[in-house]
Amino acid sequence: MHELRKDILLGRWVAVLSDSKAPSEYDLSFMDRKEDGRCILCKNRENETPHETASIRIPNTPADSPGWWVRAVPSFRPIFQIEGDLGRKGMGIYDMMNSIGANEILIESPEHGIRPEDMGIEQMIRVLTLYRDRIADLERDSRLRYILIYKDSGKDAGEIFSHPVSFLMATPVIPKTVKDELDNAKQYYSYKERCIFCDIIREELRVGDRIILETRNFIAFCPFAAQLAFESWIIPKRHSCAFHEVTYGEIEDLGLILMSVLKKLRKIFNDPPFNYYIHTAPNMVPRRDHWHTLGEDYHWHIEIIPRLIRTSGFEWGSGFYILQTSPENAAKYLREVE
Amino acid sequence: MHELRKDILLGRWVAVLSDSKAPSEYDLSFMDRKEDGRCILCKNRENETPHETASIRIPNTPADSPGWWVRAVPSFRPIFQIEGDLGRKGMGIYDMMNSIGANEILIESPEHGIRPEDMGIEQMIRVLTLYRDRIADLERDSRLRYILIYKDSGKDAGEIFSHPVSFLMATPVIPKTVKDELDNAKQYYSYKERCIFCDIIREELRVGDRIILETRNFIAFCPFAAQLAFESWIIPKRHSCAFHEVTYGEIEDLGLILMSVLKKLRKIFNDPPFNYYIHTAPNMVPRRDHWHTLGEDYHWHIEIIPRLIRTSGFEWGSGFYILQTSPENAAKYLREVE
Repeated sequence: MHELRKDILLGRWVAVLSDSKAPSEYDLSFMDRKEDGRCILCKNRENETPHETASIRIPNTPADSPGWWVRAVPSFRPIFQIEGDLGRKGMGIYDMMNSIGANEILIESPEHGIRPEDMGIEQMIRVLTLYRDRIADLERDSRLRYILIYKDSGKDAGEIFSHPVSFLMATPVIPKTVKDELDNAKQYYSYKERCIFCDIIREELRVGDRIILETRNFIAFCPFAAQLAFESWIIPKRHSCAFHEVTYGEIEDLGLILMSVLKKLRKIFNDPPFNYYIHTAPNMVPRRDHWHTLGEDYHWHIEIIPRLIRTSGFEWGSGFYILQTSPENAAKYLREVE
Repeated sequence: MHELRKDILLGRWVAVLSDSKAPSEYDLSFMDRKEDGRCILCKNRENETPHETASIRIPNTPADSPGWWVRAVPSFRPIFQIEGDLGRKGMGIYDMMNSIGANEILIESPEHGIRPEDMGIEQMIRVLTLYRDRIADLERDSRLRYILIYKDSGKDAGEIFSHPVSFLMATPVIPKTVKDELDNAKQYYSYKERCIFCDIIREELRVGDRIILETRNFIAFCPFAAQLAFESWIIPKRHSCAFHEVTYGEIEDLGLILMSVLKKLRKIFNDPPFNYYIHTAPNMVPRRDHWHTLGEDYHWHIEIIPRLIRTSGFEWGSGFYILQTSPENAAKYLREVE
């Protein structure tokens, strides 16, 4: 089994695969990946994938058969596995545990060459509903502490399938970036007795120049101190810590604003590589330290990061980023594009 | 002037450039950058760069003239500027300050197409001595809190000059990654009353299977929970918090071990893109919180990170990394290469 190891210095966990790659297996010519024209994620090949964990499909069509609009299947080469116990243990001065968790591929469409945001709002609602349902399902496993849903678009953003997909990773630890966000939101809440995200929403609506788009339930904006240029966030106006508490009415609205921001980025940069991911509350574990405010101090949101620059030793060594376009200007460009 | 903004959520600072790039100015075809064959960093063009801040050169040759082996010059387009005050202020709910600091290009050789590790130990000693001297000089400016020296090799690692160079960035805040390392090292010290890095060195020497190379004064090893596959660290066996306290004898030894690891990586991966950077103690500021143990809780080191994979939304959204080669196997491959 793969193992999880804790970085004793930064408190960050990493997964170490048991079948180590040899140096010759690393492909440094990233851009040269070829598809062989046969995609196992397309419709009519359902019985060649692992069994689906969920789908939204034509009523009465059986699982693992055609008739689906969106479909979740376990990863072909999972990093985390669902069977087993955590097996936490020490190893010399270091700490490790088993790689318990889940990896799923969330297939966004039966069609190979299309994106959900081009198929219309109905399909986008199905994609977001699949996200919600998978989180709600996996949240019940008490060994899992966090469920991250993310998307990679473009080879430079780590894309590995040309079929439109998102991914789900459920981990037995809270990942460091999320933990930092939770810790700081909690600290702010202790000091102000207000949700830091609700304060950000009020401030952004008051100032206005970093807003890309506002709908009934959401705002899309470029954060004041974004990590990357043209980074865009979508956040619900209603305080809610967990993505899977989103309502049907909100999902439609979310679909529209997400489609709109993705299309704006695509138009402005001629289809740039990008990632997005959902930051939601960790799984509810009674008496967990982070959780004793019962969700009042956290607020789910989606972060969209276009990959416009190469990171250098400066960013890797420092965690300090340089924005070549200010968030105010980025929002203006994004507002103005059709 | 550019400005520094604080991410209210993560406590991380970012620099926002005052002359925002338009979307059309982002070059997404990263690999297509061309050199025009005329390099301003080569010898005999000294009067076309900003005035050198330091150099190691033939005795009695004047500054900004030929005769140098290594040379530091201010950046052509600095992110940080040395003149002015910090001007800390609030902006709505957010915090910002002026972009005070220093950016320098550390030219590693007068020859365009050569690397210092191929020029022999004498040249590598000069490069490391220039690193040391620039840190020692800038450390005296009380507005500067941190000095990061780093190197980008290969376009995929953010390289912007084909001439062999390193960079120096001096910032008025401690960058987040460094602060996390300092905080955790300090916490470990409080608990154990030992330097965490000294403990890591003892553990690595005891176990042995992650050691790449050991010299009189240094070890090179693949960390137990590295962030990236084949990540390699070089660390002095003698406890020392600050790089610029390195002695002449140690610099020679450091040059040899650094050259050796760089050559091993180059051979094993056929010249991969990589970054390295020095993590050293922040500038001494009396009564600073991090510093009341007078350096007993921190230990300088060099981190070398080959850029073998593309990061995806998983890494960006979580800070959780996946190692496709275990540190033990990576060290073995590196030990075995000539």
